[in-house]
Amino acid sequence: MPAYSTNMRFKFPIFAIILEIITIVLFAFFVEYDKGGHSHGIHTHTHFQNLFQDVHVMIFIGFGFLMTFLKKYGFSSVGLNMLLAAFGLQWGLLMQGFWHGGGKIHVSVYRMINADFSTATVLISFGAVLGKTSPLQLLILTLLEITTFAVNEHIVADLLKASDAGASMTIHAFGAYFGLAVARMLYRPGLKNGHENDGSVYHSDMFAMIGTVFLWMFWPSFNSAIAEPGVPQLTAVVNTYLSLAACTLSAFAVSSLVEHRGKLDMVHIQNATLAGGVAVGTCADMAIGPFGAMLIGFLAGIISTLGFKFLSPILAANLGIQDTCGVHNLHGMPGILGGLAGIVAVQFGKKDGSAGMQAAALGSSLGFALVGGTITGLIMKLPIWGQPPDQNCFDDSIYWEVPEEEEENNESLTHGEHSKNKAEA
Amino acid sequence: MPAYSTNMRFKFPIFAIILEIITIVLFAFFVEYDKGGHSHGIHTHTHFQNLFQDVHVMIFIGFGFLMTFLKKYGFSSVGLNMLLAAFGLQWGLLMQGFWHGGGKIHVSVYRMINADFSTATVLISFGAVLGKTSPLQLLILTLLEITTFAVNEHIVADLLKASDAGASMTIHAFGAYFGLAVARMLYRPGLKNGHENDGSVYHSDMFAMIGTVFLWMFWPSFNSAIAEPGVPQLTAVVNTYLSLAACTLSAFAVSSLVEHRGKLDMVHIQNATLAGGVAVGTCADMAIGPFGAMLIGFLAGIISTLGFKFLSPILAANLGIQDTCGVHNLHGMPGILGGLAGIVAVQFGKKDGSAGMQAAALGSSLGFALVGGTITGLIMKLPIWGQPPDQNCFDDSIYWEVPEEEEENNESLTHGEHSKNKAEA
Amino acid sequence: MPAYSTNMRFKFPIFAIILEIITIVLFAFFVEYDKGGHSHGIHTHTHFQNLFQDVHVMIFIGFGFLMTFLKKYGFSSVGLNMLLAAFGLQWGLLMQGFWHGGGKIHVSVYRMINADFSTATVLISFGAVLGKTSPLQLLILTLLEITTFAVNEHIVADLLKASDAGASMTIHAFGAYFGLAVARMLYRPGLKNGHENDGSVYHSDMFAMIGTVFLWMFWPSFNSAIAEPGVPQLTAVVNTYLSLAACTLSAFAVSSLVEHRGKLDMVHIQNATLAGGVAVGTCADMAIGPFGAMLIGFLAGIISTLGFKFLSPILAANLGIQDTCGVHNLHGMPGILGGLAGIVAVQFGKKDGSAGMQAAALGSSLGFALVGGTITGLIMKLPIWGQPPDQNCFDDSIYWEVPEEEEENNESLTHGEHSKNKAEA
Repeated sequence: MPAYSTNMRFKFPIFAIILEIITIVLFAFFVEYDKGGHSHGIHTHTHFQNLFQDVHVMIFIGFGFLMTFLKKYGFSSVGLNMLLAAFGLQWGLLMQGFWHGGGKIHVSVYRMINADFSTATVLISFGAVLGKTSPLQLLILTLLEITTFAVNEHIVADLLKASDAGASMTIHAFGAYFGLAVARMLYRPGLKNGHENDGSVYHSDMFAMIGTVFLWMFWPSFNSAIAEPGVPQLTAVVNTYLSLAACTLSAFAVSSLVEHRGKLDMVHIQNATLAGGVAVGTCADMAIGPFGAMLIGFLAGIISTLGFKFLSPILAANLGIQDTCGVHNLHGMPGILGGLAGIVAVQFGKKDGSAGMQAAALGSSLGFALVGGTITGLIMKLPIWGQPPDQNCFDDSIYWEVPEEEEENNESLTHGEHSKNKAEA
Repeated sequence: MPAYSTNMRFKFPIFAIILEIITIVLFAFFVEYDKGGHSHGIHTHTHFQNLFQDVHVMIFIGFGFLMTFLKKYGFSSVGLNMLLAAFGLQWGLLMQGFWHGGGKIHVSVYRMINADFSTATVLISFGAVLGKTSPLQLLILTLLEITTFAVNEHIVADLLKASDAGASMTIHAFGAYFGLAVARMLYRPGLKNGHENDGSVYHSDMFAMIGTVFLWMFWPSFNSAIAEPGVPQLTAVVNTYLSLAACTLSAFAVSSLVEHRGKLDMVHIQNATLAGGVAVGTCADMAIGPFGAMLIGFLAGIISTLGFKFLSPILAANLGIQDTCGVHNLHGMPGILGGLAGIVAVQFGKKDGSAGMQAAALGSSLGFALVGGTITGLIMKLPIWGQPPDQNCFDDSIYWEVPEEEEENNESLTHGEHSKNKAEA
Repeated sequence: MPAYSTNMRFKFPIFAIILEIITIVLFAFFVEYDKGGHSHGIHTHTHFQNLFQDVHVMIFIGFGFLMTFLKKYGFSSVGLNMLLAAFGLQWGLLMQGFWHGGGKIHVSVYRMINADFSTATVLISFGAVLGKTSPLQLLILTLLEITTFAVNEHIVADLLKASDAGASMTIHAFGAYFGLAVARMLYRPGLKNGHENDGSVYHSDMFAMIGTVFLWMFWPSFNSAIAEPGVPQLTAVVNTYLSLAACTLSAFAVSSLVEHRGKLDMVHIQNATLAGGVAVGTCADMAIGPFGAMLIGFLAGIISTLGFKFLSPILAANLGIQDTCGVHNLHGMPGILGGLAGIVAVQFGKKDGSAGMQAAALGSSLGFALVGGTITGLIMKLPIWGQPPDQNCFDDSIYWEVPEEEEENNESLTHGEHSKNKAEA
């Protein structure tokens, strides 16, 4: 199949280098340091820089390691996560700037937080197609999704003036449905009956828990980073902390309830315990009360776990949506729940605003995601980007040099491991 | 043995859900946002939020991964750590509030730090019974231990007005002896000669080092978080940093001294290097001098390592105290050392206070721990909580779906791993 | 070979304990708490403490886990990293103080950041000799290198008054060439054809990525920590963030370009993606423009990857420099690039200063590194420090108790693993 050649030798490096050179040229023309605004004064700097570092950890460690649960796909999960986020934050800085005002784009720590945010959408979508795409396809996804995100974010925040402090709608629901639309376009009938590498081993599940726990811990910073300083920001921290705590209890409980002999399932624990952070996002800075935040989290943990158990198999079997990480359960449904909770909260006066505009924001986010994802999926489907054949899915060794340990265990049990072995060398 | 049924299918989920619903109802009645006090003003918020995030990392990554050293108990260590901490922080917020004043409880970031602190006692005790208890038993432990902790903490801080900035007495010694009392009540003669799963493999020891290093790094934040802002807080940071550094040298040295051919033992490195953080706790904010802090740390590293090597086997063999993680060596003895150092330091005028009250605080902490732990252990011993039988101790697969890698290595070396294998499926 | 006895039983513990006691005595005479200066006022404290915690994570998690890529050397990598950093920060506090002024040394959080910095030089050099030295040799390296570092740093900062905010010259180039000089002195002809343990396995590469990602994320804090507060500090954060992002793209691209079938090589991804942080160091706080920072990072990623692929084998084969971690490629060449960029930037007026003095600073750093490293290497070569024989290189089991998993897989496939197995027990 020459059209499906997965040899990246020239395509990937040349594309990546040209993309970076273009980006640097755009920065030379359009970007300069910020001299005032959000970042003037040492105290504000300290404030934003700490939030920035927390968000940065969520993007690079949190998302990166959360996806390392697959037994043979850890290099790609954490490595490509780093590549996409590194490119995405540059592109996000440019895209935000183009939409948020004329003249030069001024890089401040506040803008860096927003740039990191824009990469989160891509990393969510990455989860839906994990193991089934080439690095080149993923760079294209990054380019197109962040561009679409910036348009939608501009509409939601500047035109509709809707509230979405923790970005349940603009990041989580958007990223999930964008990714699901791409996954639908890239549907692989050959994976209908599963794939031997589409599963975890003991230590890959442990690596994934590093991602889970860092996401869980720093989510209060994520949801409060762009809230108004003062009471709204404090409220966002408290609401997120409590929502996640309640969500953890319900996720554990429901996982045990639906599994064989009441056992806990690592997939649920790795993911559904985080749904409370997603779902409380839109309301994070609203005076919904500590128990209100806990109720949202409690509900999100239940919905998310049930989604993994019952809905994901249906989406794969009936709708042709093969969602590797189950982003629909962690980001999709809890993101919509967050959007709906925001509509209700604004309606009940928990924050100034219009319930109608909140609903329009949710609709806009879903619409841009589905249309943008479908078009992006069609482009990614072109047989020139080195997409892996079915039998090489979920396997690092197609795009990475991989040490040869497993073969050796099988073939040569009596001698030690050789230095510098490479798979398929 | 029907009384020892470990099927969690209904017991655990129903108990967890009811517990969470009761908690949410209590929050609805008693808890509201803080509007002033410790958290007003953006700068104070930044200050406390950063300390909070550091403490949060210690609780969820530090304690969670420190306990992953067992070869087959990583899911439980990091997963149940998350469950207990998530429930514990909610319960801790309620318990603190009930004792610290009438009227509503106001959640601020400062209170969130204290809530995280209260969970630390449970996670220390968890270490003593690691591998030998069901998730349900551990939820009961959390409920009872945090309640007891709140009473003792109220007595020490508000009635005795004793100093314990880094909580050597109220968290470390309390948590350790509470856990040891529980472990004594749950004594298992069947484990007298060890258990094949009560040991590490190479990579499980590596995961545990993630926990060790994060605890080590953020301990200055832990010990300074509730100290008086200004000089006392700076002092707590400096003292803790130096105590841990000196402790690391003595722990490495003594580990080498007592082992075969001078080799280092990972158990000592993972644990005894942290004893300096525990032992300097009570004195952390006192003007004991940089070299004073280093002396405390140096001594703690020696005592802790010797405890692992010589005392733990004696406790298990002669007193029936099977302390899986050796919390007596990391939290127990160094906690008492910290309490004693505090008495001496106050006596010598390093901080205003009464040496007698310091001694009373140490006695109160130990007394509440031993009595509370004994009663809690008796309740946990009731044969209705799904406690694992001896042969299933230290093994995730009794409460978790576990991928089947090891069986496969043995049985089917020539084919690849199957997707979605589950242990005992 | 009695001269090469690797039994550490008395040598190592006695040396470590005496070293620590001497250090405590020196602290008792020369060190006291800081009462003003950099650390007065709670807001400045918060500011520096957060930077300190970020730098601390880089030193202990970043460097520690980056070196865990070797299949059998993880305990030593993260464990000895902790030992050397813990001693190094104490020694660094003393050495800085001796050079930076008369009278007592005042420990502030600012000084703690600098103490952590001084340990970074040792950890870089450690990378060059990883797997080939005893713990005792490494303590001697720490003692001598930090002493040399403090002299050079005093000359560069106080006498030449050169700019080096992110320490491309004084930490990275210095640490790399010091380590390479030591490695040259400790040249082992027996390792000319490689060593079976000098390679990674799948999960050891995953652990190493934890180190990579934490270094990558917190590098903006490292490069801005000692910059002037206000605009220069903001500039350092922005420049480092963008340099690393651009560097990641070029490192991935070149890795794919030079490897078989365009595959990515984990060694490049783990290391070369960080070269942008090193290379932008000297210019970090200068107004080189966002695109200027990106250009430096882009170039650093290319040079570093090419160095791993083509230069390291030449250094090993022709110059007798066996550089285990390739520190020449991550810290050496990018450090020089950073120094050169600093000369150019000062020449073009991006910051007040003298290009000549910048050049002198680079020369001084390289000179002290090469001379200091050569002398240190000669001392480390003395046959009394328990250096490992060639066949035991890159293997924890010579200095650590190691669980026996691998032997078991081979010999006794049918029974489970035994508890408390020890290698060579």
